[in-house]
Amino acid sequence: MKGIEVFAPATVSNLGSGFDIIGFPVEDIGDVVVIKPVSQAEIRIVHLGGYGDIPREVEKNTASFALGKMFQKLEVKRGVELEIYKGIRPGSGIGSSAASAAAALTGANEWLGRPLSQLQLVELAMESEGMVSGSRHADNVAPALMGGITVVRSYNPLDIFRIEPPGQLYTVLLHPHIEVKTQTSRKILPRQVKLEDAVRQWGNVAGLIAGLQRGDYDLIGRSMEDVIVEPARARLIPGYDQLKTAAVEAGALNCSISGSGPSVLALCKGRENAEKVKSAMDQAYQNRQISFQSLITRVNPRGAVVQRKW
Amino acid sequence: MKGIEVFAPATVSNLGSGFDIIGFPVEDIGDVVVIKPVSQAEIRIVHLGGYGDIPREVEKNTASFALGKMFQKLEVKRGVELEIYKGIRPGSGIGSSAASAAAALTGANEWLGRPLSQLQLVELAMESEGMVSGSRHADNVAPALMGGITVVRSYNPLDIFRIEPPGQLYTVLLHPHIEVKTQTSRKILPRQVKLEDAVRQWGNVAGLIAGLQRGDYDLIGRSMEDVIVEPARARLIPGYDQLKTAAVEAGALNCSISGSGPSVLALCKGRENAEKVKSAMDQAYQNRQISFQSLITRVNPRGAVVQRKW
Repeated sequence: MKGIEVFAPATVSNLGSGFDIIGFPVEDIGDVVVIKPVSQAEIRIVHLGGYGDIPREVEKNTASFALGKMFQKLEVKRGVELEIYKGIRPGSGIGSSAASAAAALTGANEWLGRPLSQLQLVELAMESEGMVSGSRHADNVAPALMGGITVVRSYNPLDIFRIEPPGQLYTVLLHPHIEVKTQTSRKILPRQVKLEDAVRQWGNVAGLIAGLQRGDYDLIGRSMEDVIVEPARARLIPGYDQLKTAAVEAGALNCSISGSGPSVLALCKGRENAEKVKSAMDQAYQNRQISFQSLITRVNPRGAVVQRKW
Repeated sequence: MKGIEVFAPATVSNLGSGFDIIGFPVEDIGDVVVIKPVSQAEIRIVHLGGYGDIPREVEKNTASFALGKMFQKLEVKRGVELEIYKGIRPGSGIGSSAASAAAALTGANEWLGRPLSQLQLVELAMESEGMVSGSRHADNVAPALMGGITVVRSYNPLDIFRIEPPGQLYTVLLHPHIEVKTQTSRKILPRQVKLEDAVRQWGNVAGLIAGLQRGDYDLIGRSMEDVIVEPARARLIPGYDQLKTAAVEAGALNCSISGSGPSVLALCKGRENAEKVKSAMDQAYQNRQISFQSLITRVNPRGAVVQRKW
């Protein structure tokens, strides 16, 4: 084999109450990684394209870092050249670091004859998340690798299950062009929470899981309420409250911060409502000095996929 | 109408991770309340039977207290005489206070022509819980009134949904004959929890809900892990660790404290396994100086039911 090309999708996570445990990949947006085996035992990044403002150093780039861990684990004696095409802006809150790592790991696993399970790939990709953000969270890497709505029941031991997305679930994503580093966004979280707030949050998590499993859209919307993370992070996103109000008034099920932000997501029932919500959010953000992009997308049932081998 | 007799079941709650949000009624055990309307605007307890060691004062008894709130809300100008037959020992951790209130409210609502919804009855019964324990929790009163597995998504506003119990779910209940007051058991809980523990707990809550909805018994078992409440309360129950070990080693899905204890519950898949788990738990508790009762039961799909009207 001379080369392998893998696409891994962008992912939204948390969905309000489900901080650090729930996420899903979106359609169309993602990173592409090309892996070319070489004989010397070295990982090299030979090309960075797209939104390429990410580290080229092997120890700081999430794709190469994850591969380093993988090769160490499997005692791989050869090396690879990596081409990374970033379709996801770094620091946008839709799993940029996770997608590159997921694509690289999937490609290398394919090259080596699939010695590792998906759960093992998730564990390796979590190492990259730990390296860039200081936290080994799986709520972007798991959906980027596995597809569908993924839920991390436990980090130790790692235990993840999937939920089939309800048929009429649409997502509006709005990405203000400011960068929020995951590391910053994690530092401002409270280290302790009141027991009563924790109970309120897990009541909402319960509703979110039941709502997603049953396709009970109203329950999904009510259950996205987040009394712990959103209050801390909302101030990192100029105009977040107005965006949320606009989305909800236009009929969105609810609206929350995607991952660590600044991207904002609104869940909607049906495409028609999603169009309406997107317009309302666009309008609410138009008079700000911040440029932005917005789009309508759905839960991508597939995670990272091999696109080409030669 | 001269009289009405209502049965309301005992309930187990929490199921490990789902503190204050999840509960279900069991079969066979419960309280019976007889209501006889009288013309004077007064609520009187005329008989206390069964495990009758509960307050007879109208303001301290959960059944009469709840009725007082109800009559106030509805501006009822008449009164009732109450007979209360306690099939549930007070302070046993299986919703003794909740069952009496649920039975009384259901009876009075029937007498008055059902002016209140079940959710409104739950709210009234929560007042009684607040009066006896200092906490207006709904995870016993909701299942005692509604039946099935109930989940409190939100307390404010009150929002409760039901889950149909998986067909092979059995419960072993072991009740050591010591009393643990809910109030005491609440006081020893931490007021603040680490964010990482809260995340771990809501990962488990997510798994518990998904497991119960899907009938994924292994997922149910893994998800009962409770890193917040059990560590604080286990020491109120002599021999709890041994009981849990015995249950799990005999093949129970998992084992946890029922409500605020001291009753201990083990969930099992199938009756055969439940028999085995019950034997193991009985044996583990036999050389203690504490007498106990144990039984096998299932999720009761019905809550409080009118048994007789005349």
